Amino acid sequence: MSRLVMKFGGTSVADLERIRRVGRLVAAEVEAGHRVAVVVSAMAGKTNELVAWTDGSGRAAQGLPESDDEYDTVVASGEQVTAGLLAMTLRNMGLNAKSWLGWQVPIITDDAHGRARIDEIPPEKLVAAMDAGEVAVIAGFQGVTREGRIATLGRGGSDTSAVAIAAAVGASCCDIYTDVDGVYTTDPRIEAKAKKLGKISYEEMLEMASLGAKVLQTRSVELAMAQRVPVRVLSSFVEPGEAPGQGTVVCDEEEIMEKRIVSGVAYSRDEAKITLFGLPDHPGVSSEIFSRLADANVNVDMIVQSRARASDSANMEFTVGKRDAARALEIVQSAKDAIGFEDVQCNEDVAKVSVIGVGMRSHAGVAKTMFGALADKGVNIQVISTSEIKISVLIDAAYTELAVRALHAAYGLDQL
Amino acid sequence: MSRLVMKFGGTSVADLERIRRVGRLVAAEVEAGHRVAVVVSAMAGKTNELVAWTDGSGRAAQGLPESDDEYDTVVASGEQVTAGLLAMTLRNMGLNAKSWLGWQVPIITDDAHGRARIDEIPPEKLVAAMDAGEVAVIAGFQGVTREGRIATLGRGGSDTSAVAIAAAVGASCCDIYTDVDGVYTTDPRIEAKAKKLGKISYEEMLEMASLGAKVLQTRSVELAMAQRVPVRVLSSFVEPGEAPGQGTVVCDEEEIMEKRIVSGVAYSRDEAKITLFGLPDHPGVSSEIFSRLADANVNVDMIVQSRARASDSANMEFTVGKRDAARALEIVQSAKDAIGFEDVQCNEDVAKVSVIGVGMRSHAGVAKTMFGALADKGVNIQVISTSEIKISVLIDAAYTELAVRALHAAYGLDQL
Repeated sequence: MSRLVMKFGGTSVADLERIRRVGRLVAAEVEAGHRVAVVVSAMAGKTNELVAWTDGSGRAAQGLPESDDEYDTVVASGEQVTAGLLAMTLRNMGLNAKSWLGWQVPIITDDAHGRARIDEIPPEKLVAAMDAGEVAVIAGFQGVTREGRIATLGRGGSDTSAVAIAAAVGASCCDIYTDVDGVYTTDPRIEAKAKKLGKISYEEMLEMASLGAKVLQTRSVELAMAQRVPVRVLSSFVEPGEAPGQGTVVCDEEEIMEKRIVSGVAYSRDEAKITLFGLPDHPGVSSEIFSRLADANVNVDMIVQSRARASDSANMEFTVGKRDAARALEIVQSAKDAIGFEDVQCNEDVAKVSVIGVGMRSHAGVAKTMFGALADKGVNIQVISTSEIKISVLIDAAYTELAVRALHAAYGLDQL
Repeated sequence: MSRLVMKFGGTSVADLERIRRVGRLVAAEVEAGHRVAVVVSAMAGKTNELVAWTDGSGRAAQGLPESDDEYDTVVASGEQVTAGLLAMTLRNMGLNAKSWLGWQVPIITDDAHGRARIDEIPPEKLVAAMDAGEVAVIAGFQGVTREGRIATLGRGGSDTSAVAIAAAVGASCCDIYTDVDGVYTTDPRIEAKAKKLGKISYEEMLEMASLGAKVLQTRSVELAMAQRVPVRVLSSFVEPGEAPGQGTVVCDEEEIMEKRIVSGVAYSRDEAKITLFGLPDHPGVSSEIFSRLADANVNVDMIVQSRARASDSANMEFTVGKRDAARALEIVQSAKDAIGFEDVQCNEDVAKVSVIGVGMRSHAGVAKTMFGALADKGVNIQVISTSEIKISVLIDAAYTELAVRALHAAYGLDQL
């Protein structure tokens, strides 16, 4: 009998009726002979309520860190409630079940409160309980530091908890139940012809997640890839008696027989482009700019430098997340004399559209198809960046949907 | 510097503004040189919300116990949130503070989930933190079993947590902050002339609590008496800058110089009287009745047996809590043949009025004054019961306020 980890997010456990539905999904896997651990998030909305209370205590005004051990003590209570309620529900269904909080497992983390990383999960107690036929209902998103303080993993941390637990207990699979029934070639709300993928490689999923697809947290995919945990994305919104379907399996590239050149088209509107005009043309200028941004914890994504035609000076363009834009602009402007540029502009009206596929590695012509398809629709490309398995372009935000649909068609994803 | 325990109930921490007020009261005690531990309840209303969720999981319908380790895991989250928020608030005020959950102290309990009793509180860690100048903010109402499961102490358990913590750390006093500013000679809502008592003995407070005064939980007074922890009842509803006043000190009888004959008048409408007519007059009848009630966990309070005038049979009257009345009646009726009575009646329209005072021990005439005062007002006494320091009478519920006011005047409490 194999061990299985099932994870349910906030919308899947939003109320008692949904928790009962989760209970039935768990019971079906137990029935099928699996030894099951379930990882749960807080009921939808609860974490926001708890965070609002901690904000209300006036931390920001005091210049105190946004999160510390007390923030975590408050916020972790959300998952605690769900874990208890689901364990109770399973017992009421006649199953043998018990809740496990972070400190009870224990899920040992570092002490970076509010965004802690998992150090270690001693698996003995958990494995013993599972192998004795007990469903282990584990509060996601939380752990405990070596000093015995509650720590949370940051937003979306429950996916990470689930993958880490799956790795620790040697689970055959980590099933992530969400409000969609798998990973699609692109966002079905934009392109009705989007197709569900049966399998996708860790590398592709990682790029999809980083590039805007919201199905899985980047961090949990990284961990799954590092630990080689097979992950399956499934829908928890199935009717009683109905199976959740096959979903999408995220796995090793080698397990995917026929590699597609492009597996998906992702987009993100959470971008801002900053342009510096008239930069002096000497070594150290880029370093001057980006070290200041890095010191301020601003993540820079795409970077392009170009020479202004009839002069010795250069222009530089880079993108940052929208919420960092104002801060990045301020940092750059305050260093105007040190850097020595002429002017700076910020444009928040941009979007990043990306095509992703492991098949790209062995196929030429992917970029050509992309640029051709966009040109055909009159979409102007502002910045380009590439990796081994993805090409991203920055475009005017107004063209986002048009570009996504054009690329989806250009790579034959409509006919998958 | 002495150690001090301060306890705040649900209405005192009902929202962030009130939590900040609690923070100011704590800061004032730290300023005054105390080493402080604070015990907090859940925000008013939160426990009910959590309990409702556990009810919703359908336990009762399955014939499962009302509370178990999962019930406790869910319900204990309420105090966890308050402890974190108050610790955070104190830090924002510049104080050194840390929250302690039941398992972090640890407050070790037995495994009677939902109504656990405290076995042991190893004081070392807590005392070290307090003596190092850290305000220990402790989640009330909760502990942890020796198996590492969360356990709750039952309703009003936070008072008990506070007294137990005070005993464990050798606190000079346990200050219980509530929404009233002390213990009164009687309920001020009934008798406007009610006076606040400066001091009251454990024994009197225990009788007052058992007899209907809602200021302190009976259980916490018992513990304070057994451990000789001085308890002070204070109001948390003071304006910023204003001191909470002197409140009422609950202490050893020896510390009260001038003993009053009667310290207070208590009442309870939570009574039901059951009368059995025509009982056979032979040994074992009482045992037959009350062992059945005890087996069903029904608490019996006052008991009177009287002989019917012109016969060999007797009548028996006893009182039970209103919520147990229907069950008690059923038990008695189902044993009609075994017991052999002729008829049974239940009257829920009764109230118990009591006068309490340690001075009674050495003063005759207390009962005479009581019965005289009630007779003067035309109040008929149905049942009488006495202890060393209290006399209780059962009367028609409609006369409750009249009786309370008459007794308050008769013992001179109006002029205290």
